[in-house]
Amino acid sequence: MDQKEYILMSTRRPKIDDVAKLAQVSKSTVSRVLNNRGYLSQNTIEKVYQAIEELNYRPNTIARQLYSNKTNIIGLIFPTVNNPFYAEMVEALEKKLFNRGFKVILGNSMNDPHKEETYLLQLLSHQVDGLIVGAHNQDLKEYQKKNLPPIVAIDMNLNPEIPVVSSDNYQGGKIATQLLLKSGAKEIIHINGPASVKSPAQKRRQAYEDVLKENNLIPHTYTVSLKDSKSKKIQIFREIFREHPLVDGIFASSDINAALIIQIAKQLGIKVPDDLKVIGYDGANITRLLMPDLTSIIQPVETMSQKAVDILQKMINDEPYPRNIILPVELWKGTTA
Amino acid sequence: MDQKEYILMSTRRPKIDDVAKLAQVSKSTVSRVLNNRGYLSQNTIEKVYQAIEELNYRPNTIARQLYSNKTNIIGLIFPTVNNPFYAEMVEALEKKLFNRGFKVILGNSMNDPHKEETYLLQLLSHQVDGLIVGAHNQDLKEYQKKNLPPIVAIDMNLNPEIPVVSSDNYQGGKIATQLLLKSGAKEIIHINGPASVKSPAQKRRQAYEDVLKENNLIPHTYTVSLKDSKSKKIQIFREIFREHPLVDGIFASSDINAALIIQIAKQLGIKVPDDLKVIGYDGANITRLLMPDLTSIIQPVETMSQKAVDILQKMINDEPYPRNIILPVELWKGTTA
Repeated sequence: MDQKEYILMSTRRPKIDDVAKLAQVSKSTVSRVLNNRGYLSQNTIEKVYQAIEELNYRPNTIARQLYSNKTNIIGLIFPTVNNPFYAEMVEALEKKLFNRGFKVILGNSMNDPHKEETYLLQLLSHQVDGLIVGAHNQDLKEYQKKNLPPIVAIDMNLNPEIPVVSSDNYQGGKIATQLLLKSGAKEIIHINGPASVKSPAQKRRQAYEDVLKENNLIPHTYTVSLKDSKSKKIQIFREIFREHPLVDGIFASSDINAALIIQIAKQLGIKVPDDLKVIGYDGANITRLLMPDLTSIIQPVETMSQKAVDILQKMINDEPYPRNIILPVELWKGTTA
Repeated sequence: MDQKEYILMSTRRPKIDDVAKLAQVSKSTVSRVLNNRGYLSQNTIEKVYQAIEELNYRPNTIARQLYSNKTNIIGLIFPTVNNPFYAEMVEALEKKLFNRGFKVILGNSMNDPHKEETYLLQLLSHQVDGLIVGAHNQDLKEYQKKNLPPIVAIDMNLNPEIPVVSSDNYQGGKIATQLLLKSGAKEIIHINGPASVKSPAQKRRQAYEDVLKENNLIPHTYTVSLKDSKSKKIQIFREIFREHPLVDGIFASSDINAALIIQIAKQLGIKVPDDLKVIGYDGANITRLLMPDLTSIIQPVETMSQKAVDILQKMINDEPYPRNIILPVELWKGTTA
């Protein structure tokens, strides 16, 4: 009776050693396959899972988690994936985390003021090893607690203890406003999120105001929230044209809002870019594919996600980590400004 | 000494009963808050979590999972969220699952032939209560096994036992091809995924071929995979114009491909829609916002996600469920066809 027959005939529950023997690999290789850690050839992965199947071995993930107090799961809390910028970010984070042996729990917090809090409360109760948060909801007291598990924020100031990865919002706002001025615009309107949201994205507004003041022009910022419905946004954007009939430049703090403004301008018979220059923000790859003409500021999603994962891993490993990472932006020159 | 003082002073580890007493709710309400099940007022949620905090009660999710053999987690395996159609689908699924007390683990399987298999193998080993799969990778033997946990497929035939939710691909293909003919196109090319992928989306191709044959025209389908890089796709789409210089209609089986074709046509000096009519597929809300001129077939993402969640819940509850749901599509009339 060979090893395999012995194990299969035995009445005891198969153990990880049995899987290792049958697959002809070491116990630590079986463990690495189960946890998707380190380099593994597809051949090894298949051999191990074939042995698991033959033996009907149940890795009992839950018991293993209870023992190690690790879940190998990271929570991602973002407003929505139904927005090309966040979609690209979540995609990049998921890929990088998978390659380090983590799976992700995705929580979309937008349009539901209590959902982010519920996610936070649940995920903080030992369901994840860490969080990456790019959500835009109200100040939640959960973020103010001491002894939080590893959390990295993307473009959000949650608490001085929580490291933030963002792109250079001031530089982005400056490039956008200067471009509109250079294109000949004189009455330039800015659209941004509510100033009450403590986001580094408010620095875009600061740069816009600084550049206009340097040029003796008066800044006007209209506020829309990511949570606002499309019809609410349309209503606010229509007001811009009523209240500022001479508007000839708009710096929208997202490409989605820029797209909506261009549609409204078209309906009002205002020609872009002849009568109105428009510049967006984010520059996600899908947006650039679907709307290549939209001039925009590109945020470095790939590098931002890489930094966020690096910092989170350092926090989990109890290594020193940087508190504040600011990455450079780029201009996408379309034809709208 | 009141109840609270008694509990706080006691050396024993706080129990769920203690939380219930302090929060002045029933034990089952605490349990519902922890599992996010049923209707709960924000006031109740906050009271319960406040009590949890005061008592430093640790719900010990993992131990609870070990006991109940439930994780309250659903795995979503989709090619990517960095595509407006899948992003809208994942967003809708996450929202509906959250409202039923589930969290989601997100796995993007695209561009990594082994990643889908790794996710499947790991998630099937007791890490999730069920799966919703809309991935497009190769035939994986895991889907052929008996006694799979609850799985619902979106637009994929994985195994006759696995229920499929799709939109009416044949009807969509028919509407698209008939519209191109009606707009005056005579040499109509179709773009679809590889026929080897067992997707109901191949019915769009069937409808395209049927409609052309009825009109004594010759069908030509070019194949691109969702996995192909942008430059690979550009190369394939350029061939269409070289091999069919008289092409005057293109039915692309996705909006992303339609957008790329329109860009290439522009570079080649071909005017859309004057010289070339283009119709896409999917009609996600973000695509319609960024590219409202693109004529497309709208898939009913909201209803598809609702049906998928309903069926999965029935499978988890061991109730009878339908095997095959086909939902109607709609035409989005832009200006490109």
